[in-house]
Amino acid sequence: MSKKRIAISVGDLNGVGIEIALKAHKEVSALCAPIYCINSYMLNQACELLDVSVPSDFVLHEVEGSFNIKEGCVDKNAGRYSYDSFLSAIKLCEAKETEAVVTMPIHKEAWMLAGLRYKGHTDMLRDYFKKDAIMMLGCEKMFVALFTEHIPLKDVASAVQYKKLKEFFLALHNSIPKESVAVLGLNPHAGDNGVLGDEELRITKAIKSANKKIGFEQFVGPLVPDTAFTPHAREKYRYFVAMYHDQGLAPLKALYFDESINVSLNLPIIRTSVDHGTAFDIAYKGNANTLSYINAIKSGILMLRTKTNSSVFGGMD
Amino acid sequence: MSKKRIAISVGDLNGVGIEIALKAHKEVSALCAPIYCINSYMLNQACELLDVSVPSDFVLHEVEGSFNIKEGCVDKNAGRYSYDSFLSAIKLCEAKETEAVVTMPIHKEAWMLAGLRYKGHTDMLRDYFKKDAIMMLGCEKMFVALFTEHIPLKDVASAVQYKKLKEFFLALHNSIPKESVAVLGLNPHAGDNGVLGDEELRITKAIKSANKKIGFEQFVGPLVPDTAFTPHAREKYRYFVAMYHDQGLAPLKALYFDESINVSLNLPIIRTSVDHGTAFDIAYKGNANTLSYINAIKSGILMLRTKTNSSVFGGMD
Repeated sequence: MSKKRIAISVGDLNGVGIEIALKAHKEVSALCAPIYCINSYMLNQACELLDVSVPSDFVLHEVEGSFNIKEGCVDKNAGRYSYDSFLSAIKLCEAKETEAVVTMPIHKEAWMLAGLRYKGHTDMLRDYFKKDAIMMLGCEKMFVALFTEHIPLKDVASAVQYKKLKEFFLALHNSIPKESVAVLGLNPHAGDNGVLGDEELRITKAIKSANKKIGFEQFVGPLVPDTAFTPHAREKYRYFVAMYHDQGLAPLKALYFDESINVSLNLPIIRTSVDHGTAFDIAYKGNANTLSYINAIKSGILMLRTKTNSSVFGGMD
Repeated sequence: MSKKRIAISVGDLNGVGIEIALKAHKEVSALCAPIYCINSYMLNQACELLDVSVPSDFVLHEVEGSFNIKEGCVDKNAGRYSYDSFLSAIKLCEAKETEAVVTMPIHKEAWMLAGLRYKGHTDMLRDYFKKDAIMMLGCEKMFVALFTEHIPLKDVASAVQYKKLKEFFLALHNSIPKESVAVLGLNPHAGDNGVLGDEELRITKAIKSANKKIGFEQFVGPLVPDTAFTPHAREKYRYFVAMYHDQGLAPLKALYFDESINVSLNLPIIRTSVDHGTAFDIAYKGNANTLSYINAIKSGILMLRTKTNSSVFGGMD
């Protein structure tokens, strides 16, 4: 099997992204064929600042533009360039020149200064493809897909609706390996038979209906949320659906903060991302950690395998 | 310093409680002076079933009543006796014959069959003392106090009120060591400056007001909930306040399921409890795990030290 081609969006060049890409290049090249969305002028500038040379097999997709890198600064030029790198990566993927996109962190304020109206990558992807992306975070040991994301807690219960949930389960089914997925309840003790809330009835109905359509019992639950992530439960499940942001992400980050990555599912392209920011405070100091990036690459490859069905139970190792 | 006297409520005698008490007696006796709320007839019956002899230094507070132990059965006599043992333990503590109460698990259905209207220990304690007990769960490494407990998720946001929160902080301050407490926000990203909810304004106000009254910055926050339990954050804080049940307990149980215990604070007496049930399936088979019980004893001692101010920064080791 030939190596998958992956477009790397280099992120905000005033931050840690390019340092991580260079540092991890050898390891990443063993996993896939990376194509870096940056021009040689900007790359050389970054390499000089980092006091490293450009690896001989560093394949570029030249993205126009030039500015002076100012390590650790919020800057509109850096914001614009990070957007252009991202857009190029998406277009490479749409043109089938790469199979997936892996993104380095951008800086929201820098995008704002550059006149870009998106809150971040996922927001831009939803608008670009006019599709409801599923946000999933995690690492090899545990992935959490979020049914609701950035909404106030008080609005979560009413957002838990049968039809939307069922669609979510079916979309998720199409995006991940065909293994069991633990679906969390909404209320303490998963409602305790209705005493502590009844949204679990809708969740149950959506699970049953989705499983019927899928043809097997992929979705299991609703599970009692506070015991869903115990060591014992995690032996049984690798994929979880959380009804809301903190229900899934607080346990995930308690357990696997450094390793976690971010995946956008249910889009025409596959996109994974590091789960950290631009880390301006340590930019160009040589100390940036490559773990999340390497995991983002691995997850991208895993999602590709799922999509192409080359290995429906594919692992990430 | 003489050993603290602790009343042990033996729990449902058809379950694992008495086995754990016997198995851990030597270790527990090194930490405190346990007084077991059970009569010798019932104790001898349990010892016979377990094929162990009664330790020579096993101090009893004889609780009237007798019935045949039926291992693993929901039984009204066992329910009644577990209640009587608990009540005796509370009364010992009220009479200053012990300094704290540690409870073994009772069975809710057995209490129901015995005509007892309480859902469990905490419910009974609230009614007995007519006081709002604070429920805190955790272990030496991490404790989580719950601001709201068994209410539907949809009711949580409106329950986050300034005055109640402030009172909660002050009551907690009086019950735990004088070290920093991380207070979680309610919404994703702690509301992101109001974009994702504004309950954090009330939380902030309550924190400030409580700290002012206390005289130092004991309460810190509101923290972003999904990153509050990362390894890095846990280096800074041992005590956390969660706004709702699963916000605090899902991360706690993901990290420390086997070790965790349950503490009732803000009551005239100190009560700690194992964080597991009667485990009827393994009762009288010799395999019950003593870790949660020993941690409950240790936590009881820690809370006592806090209360008596003998060591305001007391650890549990």
